[in-house]
Amino acid sequence: MTTGYYASGTEVRAACRDGRHTGQTSGLAQGFQQGNLAILPSAYADDFLRYCVRNPKPAPLLGVSEPGDPSLPQIGRDIDIRRDLPRYRVFRNGEPAESVTDLDALWRDDFVSFVIGCSFSFETALLRDDIPVRHIAAGRNVAMYVTNIETEQAGPFGGPMVVSMRSFSPRDAIRAVILSSRLPEAHGAPVHLGDPAAIGIADLSKPDFGDVPDIHAGDVPVFWACGVTPQSAIRRARPEIAIVHEPGHMLVTDLRVSMS
Amino acid sequence: MTTGYYASGTEVRAACRDGRHTGQTSGLAQGFQQGNLAILPSAYADDFLRYCVRNPKPAPLLGVSEPGDPSLPQIGRDIDIRRDLPRYRVFRNGEPAESVTDLDALWRDDFVSFVIGCSFSFETALLRDDIPVRHIAAGRNVAMYVTNIETEQAGPFGGPMVVSMRSFSPRDAIRAVILSSRLPEAHGAPVHLGDPAAIGIADLSKPDFGDVPDIHAGDVPVFWACGVTPQSAIRRARPEIAIVHEPGHMLVTDLRVSMS
Repeated sequence: MTTGYYASGTEVRAACRDGRHTGQTSGLAQGFQQGNLAILPSAYADDFLRYCVRNPKPAPLLGVSEPGDPSLPQIGRDIDIRRDLPRYRVFRNGEPAESVTDLDALWRDDFVSFVIGCSFSFETALLRDDIPVRHIAAGRNVAMYVTNIETEQAGPFGGPMVVSMRSFSPRDAIRAVILSSRLPEAHGAPVHLGDPAAIGIADLSKPDFGDVPDIHAGDVPVFWACGVTPQSAIRRARPEIAIVHEPGHMLVTDLRVSMS
Repeated sequence: MTTGYYASGTEVRAACRDGRHTGQTSGLAQGFQQGNLAILPSAYADDFLRYCVRNPKPAPLLGVSEPGDPSLPQIGRDIDIRRDLPRYRVFRNGEPAESVTDLDALWRDDFVSFVIGCSFSFETALLRDDIPVRHIAAGRNVAMYVTNIETEQAGPFGGPMVVSMRSFSPRDAIRAVILSSRLPEAHGAPVHLGDPAAIGIADLSKPDFGDVPDIHAGDVPVFWACGVTPQSAIRRARPEIAIVHEPGHMLVTDLRVSMS
């Protein structure tokens, strides 16, 4: 893994494409939106597209490709989705299989690419407003939990919403709600705050994904819909093959982070 | 007390002026901003103006008059502040004195009028979005509490912030935060949510002003800066005379409620 300074999505993608960057993308090319990737055979694409449209908080769609076309001109100049992420994870029949740095050997003419907004741009906005983000300060991954909130189903895609949790002082929780509401492409406003049990989370210290959270005395836990939700829906649908980004290794787009 | 349908601030003010309306103004002339009134001798006016500017959440200024001038052309056509509210309360040396329906007998050439935004327009916005407001549904006044949050002092004006509390389901609490943040003239975003003790409130069932709240199971209490704060600051400053609106009997302005 190498890291460096990248001023734009174009520069990050070029570094991924020629193998100079294979690490995480958190903090790179600040001001540009990063995206979760999901690649599916076209037989699944229509259902998955409807799933995203019906569940815009966990799955805010930034872009969708034509079948077999590795470009996504709506969200970035000259994107080659087969090579422009640092690392990919392959699922076969819903189970994790290989982890690869390009898709040259796997690409199919019926692959459709979906790019879904991620919370990095939201966290950048929090930090820019001097709102402490506990897991970043602690050098951990965000804590994520499977909830009892059911997503809207579409074909074989469905299942519970996965949320990420960030805790704040009450004052900062209020500011985080307002800020995130203005970033619908980064999951928007939270789906819950306060009592974790109300959305089926038994113990905040036992996240289903990510790291144990660092919750300060007096903090309010705030819960956002998470991009792991559509990934879980894909696993439940068990397509013969699906390709997603390796966690933290996102597509950096040319879209600017802007308050709506 | 009589009530009726009033389409605008002009109509409400005319009804107050000729004695047809002497009751509360909640729900009248929807879509128009209502304001708290504070009238002070000019010797206090500069300090109180700075107090409001330094504390925009409890005291969002809608308008301020010239000394002795009963009009406020910035916020309403032909306002006569001496007659355009349904009822006024007089304080002498910080203590409540008479309650009157006009100021003809009390007016002085050095009186300066301050009109401060109130939460009615915010509550209207909540109801319009189908967010239940517990105290309205229960036919009660909102519960208000003195906190341990000190306001910024200016001259003799200072003291603790008074907050109003509204409780919601977590989902509606998030929506109420977002909505209110877009209405800075109606006290804006909340100052606190969750644990009342964190801002010095020992018992939600014992409000300092207003009625006992109706809190549903699973509700999150949300706290907004309240227009009672500047009124308390005036009482602490003990001017020889100060005139405010009778609680709930506001000035209805020509300003539209609009999301900023």
